[in-house]
Amino acid sequence: MRIVVVGGVAGGMSCAARARRLDERAEIIVLERGEHVSYANCGLPYFVGGEIRDEAALLVQTPERLKAALNLDVRTGNDVVGLDAQARELTVRTAAGDRSLSYDALVLSPGARAFRPPVPGLDSPRVQTLRTVPDAVALHDEVAGGARRAVVLGAGFIGVEVAEALAQQGVETTMVEPAGQVLPPLDAEQAWPVTQELRRLGVAVRTGVAAEEVLPGRDADTVVLSDGTRLTADLIVLSAGVRPDTEVFERAGVACERGAIVVDEHGATSLPGVWAVGDATVSTDPVTGVRRPVALAGPANRAGRLVADHILRRGTARPVPQPLGTAIVRVGELTAAMTGANRAALDAADVAYRTLHLHPNQHAGYFPGAAQIRLSVHVRTPDGLLLGAQAVGADGVDKRIDVLATAIRAQMSVTDLIDLDLAYSPPYGQAKDAINLAGMVGANVLDGTLALWDARDLDAVRYESLVLDVRSAAEVATGMIPGALHVPHTELRGRLDEVREAAAGRPVRVTCASGVRSAIAHRVLVQEGFDSASLSGGMLTLRAVLGERAEELLTARQVQPA
Amino acid sequence: MRIVVVGGVAGGMSCAARARRLDERAEIIVLERGEHVSYANCGLPYFVGGEIRDEAALLVQTPERLKAALNLDVRTGNDVVGLDAQARELTVRTAAGDRSLSYDALVLSPGARAFRPPVPGLDSPRVQTLRTVPDAVALHDEVAGGARRAVVLGAGFIGVEVAEALAQQGVETTMVEPAGQVLPPLDAEQAWPVTQELRRLGVAVRTGVAAEEVLPGRDADTVVLSDGTRLTADLIVLSAGVRPDTEVFERAGVACERGAIVVDEHGATSLPGVWAVGDATVSTDPVTGVRRPVALAGPANRAGRLVADHILRRGTARPVPQPLGTAIVRVGELTAAMTGANRAALDAADVAYRTLHLHPNQHAGYFPGAAQIRLSVHVRTPDGLLLGAQAVGADGVDKRIDVLATAIRAQMSVTDLIDLDLAYSPPYGQAKDAINLAGMVGANVLDGTLALWDARDLDAVRYESLVLDVRSAAEVATGMIPGALHVPHTELRGRLDEVREAAAGRPVRVTCASGVRSAIAHRVLVQEGFDSASLSGGMLTLRAVLGERAEELLTARQVQPA
Repeated sequence: MRIVVVGGVAGGMSCAARARRLDERAEIIVLERGEHVSYANCGLPYFVGGEIRDEAALLVQTPERLKAALNLDVRTGNDVVGLDAQARELTVRTAAGDRSLSYDALVLSPGARAFRPPVPGLDSPRVQTLRTVPDAVALHDEVAGGARRAVVLGAGFIGVEVAEALAQQGVETTMVEPAGQVLPPLDAEQAWPVTQELRRLGVAVRTGVAAEEVLPGRDADTVVLSDGTRLTADLIVLSAGVRPDTEVFERAGVACERGAIVVDEHGATSLPGVWAVGDATVSTDPVTGVRRPVALAGPANRAGRLVADHILRRGTARPVPQPLGTAIVRVGELTAAMTGANRAALDAADVAYRTLHLHPNQHAGYFPGAAQIRLSVHVRTPDGLLLGAQAVGADGVDKRIDVLATAIRAQMSVTDLIDLDLAYSPPYGQAKDAINLAGMVGANVLDGTLALWDARDLDAVRYESLVLDVRSAAEVATGMIPGALHVPHTELRGRLDEVREAAAGRPVRVTCASGVRSAIAHRVLVQEGFDSASLSGGMLTLRAVLGERAEELLTARQVQPA
Repeated sequence: MRIVVVGGVAGGMSCAARARRLDERAEIIVLERGEHVSYANCGLPYFVGGEIRDEAALLVQTPERLKAALNLDVRTGNDVVGLDAQARELTVRTAAGDRSLSYDALVLSPGARAFRPPVPGLDSPRVQTLRTVPDAVALHDEVAGGARRAVVLGAGFIGVEVAEALAQQGVETTMVEPAGQVLPPLDAEQAWPVTQELRRLGVAVRTGVAAEEVLPGRDADTVVLSDGTRLTADLIVLSAGVRPDTEVFERAGVACERGAIVVDEHGATSLPGVWAVGDATVSTDPVTGVRRPVALAGPANRAGRLVADHILRRGTARPVPQPLGTAIVRVGELTAAMTGANRAALDAADVAYRTLHLHPNQHAGYFPGAAQIRLSVHVRTPDGLLLGAQAVGADGVDKRIDVLATAIRAQMSVTDLIDLDLAYSPPYGQAKDAINLAGMVGANVLDGTLALWDARDLDAVRYESLVLDVRSAAEVATGMIPGALHVPHTELRGRLDEVREAAAGRPVRVTCASGVRSAIAHRVLVQEGFDSASLSGGMLTLRAVLGERAEELLTARQVQPA
C-alpha cells in the first residue's frame, strides 16, 4: 500500500509517523513544497526576536532522520500541482520537472498561506510574511542589516509575536489592525491589557485603521493608513491572517467551503481515497456549531494521527475531535489565552449566556510573586454549561485555560468547577483556586444569589441607577465613576440609610476593585430590600472595557476627605 | 438563628463567611482555640525558610477585619471542651473561665493535631511541631538563635518543606522517614527524584529507619535511630502526620471512625444540628471507595461553603464532593504533585490497572528552558478510566496535574486525553501536549498497539528475555542493563536478524531513554513476529525505580565501540 502525504509539517507529518507505527510494510511518501519538513513554525517569531538563536533548532526533523527512524520517504521541493482522484494520481513539480505519482491513500495537509488583502503596493520587496524558516531568516537578516522602522500589518497572534520580536531588537515598530483591538479573537476587555503591554514594550499600536497603500521608496517604503497617517518603514510584515492553500485540490474536485476542504468526522474528503487535515480543512466549533477552518498546530497534529488510524484501521478509528480553538500567546511579561467561544461567536450564534469576570491571584496572596489573573468565563443560561473562557496575566494563565479547556470538553457546567480538586500549595495556587472561584461566582449568578451588572452597560447604569463604590478611600482616589456614592464595604451596614436616601428609589449598582467586596455588599443590600447588582470584575474590568476612555471618564473629584 | 463554628481556619472560616453572605440576619460566632484565625497554615514552612519574611503576611484575616467586612463574631482563645448536643450547648474554655454557649446550628472544624508516635523523649523542649503561626515563629527564632543541627521526623509534605526551609537557612538537616521513601503518598519512582533533589539541597535523607528514642542533653539532644545511628540535634521537628482533633466531640456522641467524624454527603454528622468539615472528617476516595480523612486545605474550604448552604438552604444545597486528594509540593527546583489514587491504594482496593510512564517536555523542545516532566498515569483496564496521576519536574507539573485532576473528576478515559485542546505556543506546551501524549500511549496500550514492560519487573525480564537497548552509543555509555543487546533504533530494521539470533526464541524487551524510541522499535519488532514489549518510561523510569541500586546495577561494560 502506498500512502502519499502532501505537506510535511504538523498534521501531515503526524499522519505519516503514525502510519508507519501502525504498518511497517506500507510505502509512505511525504511531499513538501518547501525546503524543510517538521519545522518549528510556531517558533519562528522567537528566532526573529533572538530568543531562539540557532536556526538549526527550528528544524525539528530532517528527511534523513525521518528515513532512519521511521522509514519515511520524505521529498522536499516537491510541489503538488495536479490531482486525478479517479486515477489516484498526483502531478508533482520538482526542480527536475513534473512527474506523476500514484497512491492508494492520499492525505492532504497543504496548510494555509498568508492572506494578502487588496492593498496596492503589497508587492514591494520590503513586505514580508513569516510562514517558513527562510522567512524567519530573512526577517532576522533585515534587522541585523539595519532595518530600524517596521510596520506590522495585522495584530493577530503572529502579528503580536512579530511586533514584540522586532521591538525587542530595537526596531521602532508600529502595529496596524483594522479591528478595534489587538488579538481580535479575544473579547475586548481581555485585549486591552495586551495593548497596554505592547505599548510598554515600545510597540505603537494602531487599531481601527487599515493600511490603504504601500508606497515604495528608495530608502524606505511609506505605509498610508485609512486615517491619513503615513508611516515610514524599512520593513513591513504582513500578518493579516491566512487562507487555506487548496486551489489545486478544489480544482480536482475535492469539495470545499470558502476554500477550506470539507472533511467527515474521520478526515475523509468528498473523494474516495483522499483525506485531509490541518489548517486547510473545515471543522465545526463544538460550542456554537459554526463551521470554519482552525489554523492551530495542536488540532492538526492530532487529526493527522487519527487520519492514519482511519486509513489503516478503518473499523476502529476514533473520530477527529472538534477543535475548541484553544490558543495562547506570550506578550512581554503577560500571557493571554482563550478556549471555546468568545463573545462575538456566542452573539452570532444567538446563544443565551452570561459572562463572569474575576481577578483572582494565581497563587497565595501572602506568597512572594502573587499576581492577579484577569479571568472571564462565558456560561450558558440558565443551565451554566461552560461555553468559553479567556485569561490574561503574568503567571498561571496557561494552567487555568487548560483546566477550563478540559472542563469544556467534558461538558461541565460552571458549578462543577467548584468541585475540582486542583493542586494547592502556596507557590502554585490558592485553597480556593481561581477556577473554583469562577465556579462559585457562576453558581451564585445562576441561582440568583448574585446579580451582576456589566461594565459595557456603564452609560445606562449611570443614567438609571445609583452607583455605589465600596472600595477604600485610597482606592477611590485613583479614580471612580462620576456621581458614584462612596461607602467602604466595611461601613456599609451602618450607613444603609445614607444609601437609601442617595438611591431615591433607583436601583443600586455596586462597584469595587475586582468584584469581591461588591458581591458582599450586594448581599447586604439585597437582603435589606434594595434592587442591587455587583459590577462583574469590578473596576479592573471596567477600565479594560473603557480602554482609552478610562482616564478621561473616571475621576477622583467626588472623593470626600476620609 | 445562631450558627456557631468551632475552628477559625480553612473550612470553618469558609463556612462562616458563606453563611453571612447567605443570611444577613444570622448570628455567626466563630470559636478558635488559638490566637489567630484564617492564618496561612500552608505558608508556615516558607516563613521558616525566610521566603515569607513578614509574620504579618501569615495572618490573612483578623477578627476585627472579619467583623467589619462580614459581621462575624470571631473569638480567639476560645477552646471548646464540652458539647451537649441534646441541649444544643457548648462548653467553652477561655482565659476568663468556662462558659456555655448555645447554638441552633453547630459546625465542627477542629482540624487535626500533630501525630506523636510512641517514641521516648519526644517531650523534650527541643522537639517542635509546625502547625500554627507561633510554631513557625518559634522555629524561625531557634534558627536565628543559632540552631545548627536539625532532625526532621517524617518526610511527608510538611516534613519535606520544613527540611528544605531549614537547609536553606544553613542548618545541617537530616530527615528521618520510616517508610522506604520520602513523600510516601507518591509512587516510589516519583519519590526518588525528590530524594535526589533534597540531597542536592543539602538535606541528609534517611528512609526506612525510624526514630527510637530522643535523648535529651544539655547542649543538644540525641536522636537514636532504629539502625543504631545517633544524630545530634539542636532542633527536632516532628512532622509524622496528623490525627483528627475530635476527642471532645466523639465523647459527646458525634459518630467517628478511627477518630474522624463521620459525615453525610452534606457534611451533617450523626447528631441533629451538628455539621463537620475539614481534616477532622471522614471522606470517601472517589476512585477506590476507601474512607479516610483528607488533611488538605482545598477540600476543607469548599466543604465549609457547602455546609453553610446546607444549613441555610437545605433544599438546594449541593453535596460536598469526594476529594481526590490532589496535592503538590515544591522541593528546591522541582515540583512534585499527584491526583487520584496511587499504586498502593489501587493495589489495596484490588483494582485492575496499568501505569503509563512518560517524560515529555513541558514546552517545545526547541524553545529555551525546555525540561522533562516525569509523568505517570494509572488507568483502569480494560476500559481506560483515569484513576490517578503523578508528576515531578522543574516546570509545568502543576498544570498537568490540574488538567488530570479535572479529567479524573469528569470520569474521562485515558483515550479522551488525546482530544483535549490545550493551549499551545512554544513557551507553554507542545503541539502534542504531555497530556495528549499520555492519552496516545494509553490508547495504544489499551488496544494492543503498544505492549509495555514495567521497570519493577527488571529481574524477571533479565532472566527470561533479551533486553534490547535502542539508544545511541553515547547514551548507552552512560550505563545500560547488563546483558542487553545494543542496536540503535535507526539501525533496527537492518539488523533484525541479529536481534533474532540474540533472542534465541526468548521475548525481546526493548529499552530507550524515555520510552518513545523503544515504542517505535516495538512496533517494528511486533510486526516482524517478535514477542516484544517496550519499557514503560524507559531508563529514566528504570533508574528511578532502582533508586540507590541504579549505579551499581547499570553498567557501561557491554558497550561495543561504535
